[in-house]
Amino acid sequence: MRNLLITMRYDGSAYHGWQVQQNAVTVQQVFQDSIEKLTGVRENVTGCSRTDSGVHALMYCCNFRTNSKIPCERMPFALNAHLPDDISVYDCREVPDDFHARYSCTSKRYIYKIWNTPFRNPFYNGKYLVYPKKLDEEQLDRAAKSFIGTHDFCGFASSGGSVEDTVRTVTYCGVRRCGDEVFFEVEADGFLYNMVRIMVGTVLSVAEGRIDALCIPDIIESKDRERAGFTAPAHGLYLKEVNYGGEKEKKE
Amino acid sequence: MRNLLITMRYDGSAYHGWQVQQNAVTVQQVFQDSIEKLTGVRENVTGCSRTDSGVHALMYCCNFRTNSKIPCERMPFALNAHLPDDISVYDCREVPDDFHARYSCTSKRYIYKIWNTPFRNPFYNGKYLVYPKKLDEEQLDRAAKSFIGTHDFCGFASSGGSVEDTVRTVTYCGVRRCGDEVFFEVEADGFLYNMVRIMVGTVLSVAEGRIDALCIPDIIESKDRERAGFTAPAHGLYLKEVNYGGEKEKKE
Repeated sequence: MRNLLITMRYDGSAYHGWQVQQNAVTVQQVFQDSIEKLTGVRENVTGCSRTDSGVHALMYCCNFRTNSKIPCERMPFALNAHLPDDISVYDCREVPDDFHARYSCTSKRYIYKIWNTPFRNPFYNGKYLVYPKKLDEEQLDRAAKSFIGTHDFCGFASSGGSVEDTVRTVTYCGVRRCGDEVFFEVEADGFLYNMVRIMVGTVLSVAEGRIDALCIPDIIESKDRERAGFTAPAHGLYLKEVNYGGEKEKKE
Repeated sequence: MRNLLITMRYDGSAYHGWQVQQNAVTVQQVFQDSIEKLTGVRENVTGCSRTDSGVHALMYCCNFRTNSKIPCERMPFALNAHLPDDISVYDCREVPDDFHARYSCTSKRYIYKIWNTPFRNPFYNGKYLVYPKKLDEEQLDRAAKSFIGTHDFCGFASSGGSVEDTVRTVTYCGVRRCGDEVFFEVEADGFLYNMVRIMVGTVLSVAEGRIDALCIPDIIESKDRERAGFTAPAHGLYLKEVNYGGEKEKKE
């Protein structure tokens, strides 16, 4: 059996996240359906991450084993023919048998997109957080930089996560503006449940004067969820990069 | 009565263009509905351009006269409350009584967006032309430059247009790439019916080897619609800038 690594994009608006659930449509389920339609066999697919309900992916990786003889270069076309328009596979490669989309992953990068005007943008509905008050991106960038380093982020996790080790290493975190768009971007070796959305809520709380940027190291240290900011809405969040080994897979 | 200049964005996917038609939903009609809901009076709104069915606008200008006392700075919020999510007003200003959104316009700029990969992008469905074969943006840019200048563009117009003078002055025309996205952009003092879409179809025909880029001046000169390229689909096209007088209104 070949072990195939699939890379795709998806608009998460219509899905309750990646992972199969009862009574809710998820990306994993729809993707497993497409494999079954293509090969006649239902395979279990391993995703690189659970993404929350409504979160998007510019790059999402998963792997599955198959006896299908379809060549890798044809696989994206073959799968896309059975997938809805809001999911699109753009790469397929054969990987060693012990490759695991989640455990082999060395780092992930997320981007959170903010439309920083008082007026909705017809092209960004459900794709950006609309934030009416003008943000000072330099202030937010300084606040974001406080997250860089190896910390116990358990104060930046919603309850419901199952991991025991809550120490993560953030290698990049920053905020930049492009016209009326403001982007929060963070890369780490792993993320706790809702961690990026709470980081975003925290820097937005700095913008609102409810949290002092200088206190962020203290807040991290305190491990107290109550002291961090609110959980920013899911629809502004995108998984942007998934990295394996030393080699960076940078597609967008 | 005040004469108000309104600036908005809209996603044209659901509309049969700007102009009111029988038996089809148009942006003008929906916008006039919103004024009527807001002020109780149905006003006739003058648009800066008819846009084709399915064409989008990052910036669209229109004007109307009203006795409403709502201050300009509140007007975008007031109108947006009565508009669907795919239309968003972001500016309102009072203009002289003789201002006319179409006749006072000195130039317009359009952008045509191409997603240049073999795979659809879930975020660009109905918003970009998907063009699978890798485009050479430098070749296309050279072809696009041939349109610059004052020419009789009657060979670059679909039948159905009503104008008699088909001479237009193109002040900018170019093609650039940003990752997997390719943008064709053109500015002129005016455009004939389908003119931008036929220009795009012509540079794509150059990419496909069906038209020699060096022949574009001849094709323009010939005034022969048959010699120009196909009419590119509407859904990749956006009105991007509308300029009045010497002052450029550059919002996106």
